[in-house]
Amino acid sequence: MIIIGEKLNSTIKSVMQAIELKDKQFIQDLAARQVEAGAAYIDVNAGMFFEDEPEKLSWMVETVQEVCSAPFSVDTPNPKALEAALKMNRNSKPLINSITDEKERYNAVEPLITEYNTSVVALCMDDNGMPETAEDRMTVAHHLIEKLTKKGLQLEDIYMDPMVRPIGTGSHYGKVALETIWQIKHSYPEVHIACGLSNISFGIPMRKLMNQTFLVAAIAAGMDGAILDPLDKKLMSLILTSEALMGTDDFCMEFIGKYREGFFEGG
Amino acid sequence: MIIIGEKLNSTIKSVMQAIELKDKQFIQDLAARQVEAGAAYIDVNAGMFFEDEPEKLSWMVETVQEVCSAPFSVDTPNPKALEAALKMNRNSKPLINSITDEKERYNAVEPLITEYNTSVVALCMDDNGMPETAEDRMTVAHHLIEKLTKKGLQLEDIYMDPMVRPIGTGSHYGKVALETIWQIKHSYPEVHIACGLSNISFGIPMRKLMNQTFLVAAIAAGMDGAILDPLDKKLMSLILTSEALMGTDDFCMEFIGKYREGFFEGG
Repeated sequence: MIIIGEKLNSTIKSVMQAIELKDKQFIQDLAARQVEAGAAYIDVNAGMFFEDEPEKLSWMVETVQEVCSAPFSVDTPNPKALEAALKMNRNSKPLINSITDEKERYNAVEPLITEYNTSVVALCMDDNGMPETAEDRMTVAHHLIEKLTKKGLQLEDIYMDPMVRPIGTGSHYGKVALETIWQIKHSYPEVHIACGLSNISFGIPMRKLMNQTFLVAAIAAGMDGAILDPLDKKLMSLILTSEALMGTDDFCMEFIGKYREGFFEGG
Repeated sequence: MIIIGEKLNSTIKSVMQAIELKDKQFIQDLAARQVEAGAAYIDVNAGMFFEDEPEKLSWMVETVQEVCSAPFSVDTPNPKALEAALKMNRNSKPLINSITDEKERYNAVEPLITEYNTSVVALCMDDNGMPETAEDRMTVAHHLIEKLTKKGLQLEDIYMDPMVRPIGTGSHYGKVALETIWQIKHSYPEVHIACGLSNISFGIPMRKLMNQTFLVAAIAAGMDGAILDPLDKKLMSLILTSEALMGTDDFCMEFIGKYREGFFEGG
């Protein structure tokens, strides 16, 4: 599972405050702990700072890479903030989070992929908005993957986000998300998934339980990447268990190893 | 989810003892509590009594139906014990647990289905043993479903058991089980699944966590019936959550209702 550590996000109050106060230690600690817990990418988001976003985002990149060599996932729809952050990057190949098939956004972000040699999270949406069905999502996915690979991007550098919508607003959205994941991985085994978990449970009770349940179902559907909190031990234990269940953890070696380390809580 | 309550099983020490002592209250209480918790069928098993199995099993049926009107799942490979139990049944249509495509067993059990007008759990195995792949399991499934429906059985009276094998003995067995469930439900939407959970985790640590994970993945694959402990609140809460996720619980009504009743523990 390719984990994109979501904690350095300006929508989280303590993170927002740390960015404002330029509290390096707080930011660096949160980055290091996520990597230690298994994050492959450190997501950085300074979206709450609006016009100051470019400056704040590049400060985050600078600050984190003083202590972390993990690649960044640069989380912004704003091409200016995106480029400011990419310019500061000295770590390995970063991940642009994200592009869509909306014409304006696509045209603004796509050149940065080539210029800065990045991977990219591509959202299944275009100028018609968020597609309703798995089939419509796949139409957008095919289109985006075709365009991006024509520009020279490798399939394994593309992370598709199936655009999870809350089941509280439509009972079918869980199944739509899972079917989209399944179809992407069956159509393009080399393409990765970068799926957020928490949208699924927006507006209903027992959100954590629903997010955990969705995580397991999504891994069973073929999800191999997720944007989540790697410090959440319950989520991480479900990832280990689901991978053992799906046979991607040969002979349950990782699962049993973590058990011996005392990673799992309870029984 | 059609839940077959598994607690009245002679392999459980306290149940074995209660059968031996003819402790009606213990047996009746365990039956009633399972129905109260959501069991559609009460599974009865007296397999540990060997030659006394017919007598013990029919006593269990008599005893339970004094207080419960839920149908029985009669759990034995022994046709004599099976018939003894079916003869005592006064509740609604029972479920024979189980038939296979092994010639001898099939021929002994199949006439009882018609004679006693029952549903049946059919295991994906034949005289070649337990099939290795999902494809081989489907060959047996097709064969069993064809034969049973030719005898007049309705598709909705058939419960297929995909024959879950431990991932500790083969990393692929989780995926094989999930694929078999998926294929059965896609080939025969009216046929039900009656899947046991605990085999998946045999021989590995953290068995409960693995069983829970398998439960969610199996529901996502289309499982609509399971042999489990309905008194296990964690399993039951995962069933509710998975059904809300998969859209089989319209508008999450059941899920939200149970939340309001205070069913879920923790957050």
